[in-house]
Amino acid sequence: MTDTPRPASPVRPVLDPLADIVDLTAAIVDIESVSGHERALADAVEDALRAHAPHLTVVRDGDTVIARTALGRVQRAILAGHLDTVPVADNLPSSRRVRDGVEELVGRGTCDMKGGVAVLLQLAVLATAPPVDLTWIFYDHEEVAAADNSLTRIAREHPEHLAGDFAILGEPTSAGVEGGCKGTMKLEVTARGVAAHSARDWVGDNAIHRLAPVLQRLADYEGRRAVIDGLEYRECLNAVLADGGVAGNVIPDRAHLTLNYRFAPDTSPEQAEAHVRELLAGLDLEIEVSDAAAGALPGLDSAPARAFLAALGDDVRVDAKQGWTDVARFSALGVPAVNFGPGDPLLAHTDDEHVPVADLRAALAALASWLEVDLPSAERP
Amino acid sequence: MTDTPRPASPVRPVLDPLADIVDLTAAIVDIESVSGHERALADAVEDALRAHAPHLTVVRDGDTVIARTALGRVQRAILAGHLDTVPVADNLPSSRRVRDGVEELVGRGTCDMKGGVAVLLQLAVLATAPPVDLTWIFYDHEEVAAADNSLTRIAREHPEHLAGDFAILGEPTSAGVEGGCKGTMKLEVTARGVAAHSARDWVGDNAIHRLAPVLQRLADYEGRRAVIDGLEYRECLNAVLADGGVAGNVIPDRAHLTLNYRFAPDTSPEQAEAHVRELLAGLDLEIEVSDAAAGALPGLDSAPARAFLAALGDDVRVDAKQGWTDVARFSALGVPAVNFGPGDPLLAHTDDEHVPVADLRAALAALASWLEVDLPSAERP
Repeated sequence: MTDTPRPASPVRPVLDPLADIVDLTAAIVDIESVSGHERALADAVEDALRAHAPHLTVVRDGDTVIARTALGRVQRAILAGHLDTVPVADNLPSSRRVRDGVEELVGRGTCDMKGGVAVLLQLAVLATAPPVDLTWIFYDHEEVAAADNSLTRIAREHPEHLAGDFAILGEPTSAGVEGGCKGTMKLEVTARGVAAHSARDWVGDNAIHRLAPVLQRLADYEGRRAVIDGLEYRECLNAVLADGGVAGNVIPDRAHLTLNYRFAPDTSPEQAEAHVRELLAGLDLEIEVSDAAAGALPGLDSAPARAFLAALGDDVRVDAKQGWTDVARFSALGVPAVNFGPGDPLLAHTDDEHVPVADLRAALAALASWLEVDLPSAERP
Repeated sequence: MTDTPRPASPVRPVLDPLADIVDLTAAIVDIESVSGHERALADAVEDALRAHAPHLTVVRDGDTVIARTALGRVQRAILAGHLDTVPVADNLPSSRRVRDGVEELVGRGTCDMKGGVAVLLQLAVLATAPPVDLTWIFYDHEEVAAADNSLTRIAREHPEHLAGDFAILGEPTSAGVEGGCKGTMKLEVTARGVAAHSARDWVGDNAIHRLAPVLQRLADYEGRRAVIDGLEYRECLNAVLADGGVAGNVIPDRAHLTLNYRFAPDTSPEQAEAHVRELLAGLDLEIEVSDAAAGALPGLDSAPARAFLAALGDDVRVDAKQGWTDVARFSALGVPAVNFGPGDPLLAHTDDEHVPVADLRAALAALASWLEVDLPSAERP
């Protein structure tokens, strides 16, 4: 909770949560909200919920907006989406286009994840009699360090907001279901040598050359494919950053790699670290874990997850989520969680970020079906 | 030649070129002259020569001082030393110490190469009747990019100043003779891959991993040992700088190494480049030469070199110079050249830079013997 009063935005944009889902997405996209600048959008979301959803209790916490039903249902589902985007790349305001016969909304955030935010916002207003109680979370600071993510603060200060039996994160999944997520770990691998003038290398020991067997083992590495609840989590281990050397005429006495290991959610960070250390055993290296986050099991066999999947029908694609997402935060709190939202995750953060209009309508319809919401006819796919 | 008049230094230090060689070295060391700030020292050297060496024609060119005899000898030798140093590391003014029974002068430039400059300056004044005509060159900007080195400018604008039959560079050699020098080449080696999210590496291609076979070939490389005029030039090929990757969650699409190849002086830069390309043949890499300088053949069989070696006697160590030095500039002009000066070259540029007093006296005595100079008794080793 912020202690200082927030001054009003100079111009307070207004959202109509009952607008056509494409118009609503465009309106949300056009309120620029790069991480750290979410206030105007959080204001607009808060205003829309207060004006249009009297059935919800709305809480404002920093630039996060939380809205809850209190219908006395046996179970509670959480539907969450982040309001922020990565920096704009000359791709705002949004535009529409038809490409190869596909109608698309184009611009920063269309895919990651303001399409999802629009779907959640509209359903928060429309879902007045859902089969489970609902907690809607629109949060800030997702596209930055985990420590700055509002869910980190809320989990610490108000864990009750995150309590529930099932969670859906509106991250882009092309309107398929992506269950759980892999864990992620960064390891700093340092090779040491002995500096010398590069005209007399025999009195030195080249630290960069010592990376050869490390990189060969990484190049040869075949990641495990772990199948959990029928979903395949494909592990990856890569050198993502390399640096070494001090000058063009000096034998380097230090060379460094950052490794990123993405491990299946049946593996703990401790097991993941042991695995990497085993892979690099016998090499004279310093290895240090600089960051680690456990994955999330898909939990697709939980009762609310089964009801959600049943409402989506047989045609919906169900896959493992490969990238780490905030579902892991819910998983860590014992809440099974899936990713489900419009947009191709491979387009997130790209300059040509866009979302197919059909994805927006499909995601809206699928969630509406589960939440027993009757959509206006225009929104039926 | 500078076009703008140089304003006088605020305080114009005075050097006594006939002082004891250790005192003279200390006085030169204590006139700070990091590259770009050589003027005060160049002024002092010019003043000393004009005041004490009426047998020399003195030319001032920028911060380079050139002084020549015109005795009509059949041959001419060039004796050159640079006035500048690498940046001071809290090691000025100079100090004297005795360590392990060895008397040393300590401070920036004592080794590289103001000991040599002191020896040359004293002999320039004393050598009034040498067996060959002499050109003394005290020059600036050696410890910086080759393009800024005054010898580059002088070779272009006044090649006659560098003309001669034999050259001695007063670089530190522990008062031994180091003949010629190896060539040096920098090569930029780039591996390309395909970027992808690090949670889905199978859609990418890791460029850093592609360095594995490059580094293995470098680690396995055994440099040729070329013996020329009885001197062994030991070739070295090393990765001296490495970098790659853009972020902790992205499969890198580019990885880069800077290689430094030090090749024997019987090898041209073209041959050197071909050799590295052959070593890395079959690997999918971009290879580009970013810098190259040929080495220098020792030329120890030239007549003036033989006379110089004969004057030094059988006890003087004669080795190949491994590091590239300005002897290569003379070699490129067809002038055989050697390095000969007080101080251990491995101490150059170190914070604990120092020179043994015995080296100063030995280098002075050896050159005096060759130049038929009678030293005051104190300077006889």
